[in-house]
Amino acid sequence: MSTDLTVASVEAIPFAIPYVKPLAFASGSVSVAEHVLVRVTTTDGLVGIAEAPPRPFTYGETQASIMAVVDSLFAPAAVGTSALHREAIHARLRRTVGNPTAKAALDMALWDIVGQAFDVPVTELLGGFGDRMRVSHMLGFADPAAMVDEAARMREVYGISTFKVKVGRDPYRLDVAVCRALREAFGEEVELYVDGNRGWSASDSARALREMADLDLLYAEELCPADDVLGRRWLAGQSTIPLVADESATTPGEVTRELLGAPRTPSASRPRAPASPTPSGSCSSARAWASTSSWATRSTARSAPPAPWPSGRRTPRRAGARAS
Amino acid sequence: MSTDLTVASVEAIPFAIPYVKPLAFASGSVSVAEHVLVRVTTTDGLVGIAEAPPRPFTYGETQASIMAVVDSLFAPAAVGTSALHREAIHARLRRTVGNPTAKAALDMALWDIVGQAFDVPVTELLGGFGDRMRVSHMLGFADPAAMVDEAARMREVYGISTFKVKVGRDPYRLDVAVCRALREAFGEEVELYVDGNRGWSASDSARALREMADLDLLYAEELCPADDVLGRRWLAGQSTIPLVADESATTPGEVTRELLGAPRTPSASRPRAPASPTPSGSCSSARAWASTSSWATRSTARSAPPAPWPSGRRTPRRAGARAS
Repeated sequence: MSTDLTVASVEAIPFAIPYVKPLAFASGSVSVAEHVLVRVTTTDGLVGIAEAPPRPFTYGETQASIMAVVDSLFAPAAVGTSALHREAIHARLRRTVGNPTAKAALDMALWDIVGQAFDVPVTELLGGFGDRMRVSHMLGFADPAAMVDEAARMREVYGISTFKVKVGRDPYRLDVAVCRALREAFGEEVELYVDGNRGWSASDSARALREMADLDLLYAEELCPADDVLGRRWLAGQSTIPLVADESATTPGEVTRELLGAPRTPSASRPRAPASPTPSGSCSSARAWASTSSWATRSTARSAPPAPWPSGRRTPRRAGARAS
Repeated sequence: MSTDLTVASVEAIPFAIPYVKPLAFASGSVSVAEHVLVRVTTTDGLVGIAEAPPRPFTYGETQASIMAVVDSLFAPAAVGTSALHREAIHARLRRTVGNPTAKAALDMALWDIVGQAFDVPVTELLGGFGDRMRVSHMLGFADPAAMVDEAARMREVYGISTFKVKVGRDPYRLDVAVCRALREAFGEEVELYVDGNRGWSASDSARALREMADLDLLYAEELCPADDVLGRRWLAGQSTIPLVADESATTPGEVTRELLGAPRTPSASRPRAPASPTPSGSCSSARAWASTSSWATRSTARSAPPAPWPSGRRTPRRAGARAS
């Protein structure tokens, strides 16, 4: 190893790409991808890049906050250290609370450098678990017919057959109707799971799950507020499908807090849901999803195929990339 | 990356080295290091090695069982796969229950190959968290004067000042007397923690901890049987020092089982205890400890400095290698 991998600079570069179609969900809506490119340069001139897509309604970051934390705290924490020493750099980043997307982008840019230095894909350095993964498309709020149309188009154009359906509206039956329309339109040919972005109450969540009990949903994500601790536990105790935590459990410590004392159901932070494209999924092309990086903290927990299937699923379909 | 890292062969080679001094502890004693060298060869001729030291009284493996499981199951699981694809290989190894030392040795031999292929120390590939770690010496059963003498010799010859004291004898006051003698002999100049290898009952464990309350112990490991679930919880609820799990929690799943429902004290599986030499620590030299590999599953959890200190310690001493 003769290359000097010392980090010489870390830059945060803002950019904006308008969505072809805005995405609406329970906690907000997005019409422009105002993201940040994190670019790391080493002493010997290798350049690693990664994208940090702020998700104010999920992780609290904005384009400006990501640029500020990278410029003022994370760049000084990395400059002068080898790109290989990411655990040492992580330890410094962890002193700063939150900012998961900014941290993840810097981490990915460091990996990008290491992969180039060793001339191997990073997936090899991560242990080469598999070369295929399911890809899901996220369906934002609309009426049932429009959401079915969008799903049909994604199936036809990109071969995607797993859909994350945004729910959490009031009244909840709007969303139940969408899920039912999707299942009726596509039968067993699609996989469906729902994401409430904490929009429902615990009691409405329970009602909705009961009314969708025959729709063979894979998972239910962040249906009700995590701060309603007892409401969530009550819901977990009666749910017949696994509950997924995202913004309420972004670190191992938060996962522990969420789980300890909870009913011993398959709840919170399921590790094997399909990799989810970001809310910018509808903006450009299927390939663009692979580069949207704010979901790194999630995809590390979720992307590995072949996934074990929770009991209750009808057919353990073969995991595989659906997008061309 | 032009080198072909495909695993061509995996060999399990037995060897035996008599100890200079046998080690006795609550669950058994060892006088000969009957270990296994696991040797992995790639298509292009790289050779990775690692040592599997069976610990029948801790993990249930023997020299013969390690050779058998490597030859019959683990070698076929690895041959034909790239040494980089260790996560794919791990997934195959995990189908076999237990056998942690055999699995760890194969894993380390694969890492050895990857480090050679990229011409970097494996510590760099693991993220380069630090370049120093505390080293402890393990004091087996003897009378207090002999154990103090051994500790004094280890301090003088190797600069080691952290000691893991084997306890778990009946009556427990034999061990309390040893810990007291060590503290009286060395004062604040040494760090002490105890390992019971499940030799005491929960009630004797509680008595012993009370009688040693003034001895500033860092941790207490496996004092009583894990199968006495309620006894352990009762002990954890009253212990004023962190409890460490080893053989009762060898996988993340076992850690979860051990913790869920337990009192929310800093118990079971503390991640930052000093790296511990193996029971063969007294056989050869301090350097030999670094190559004893059965503790890989433990050292991954324990070896990273600088360690955060549990509350109640007097002085946060600087973590650093004590052995030359």
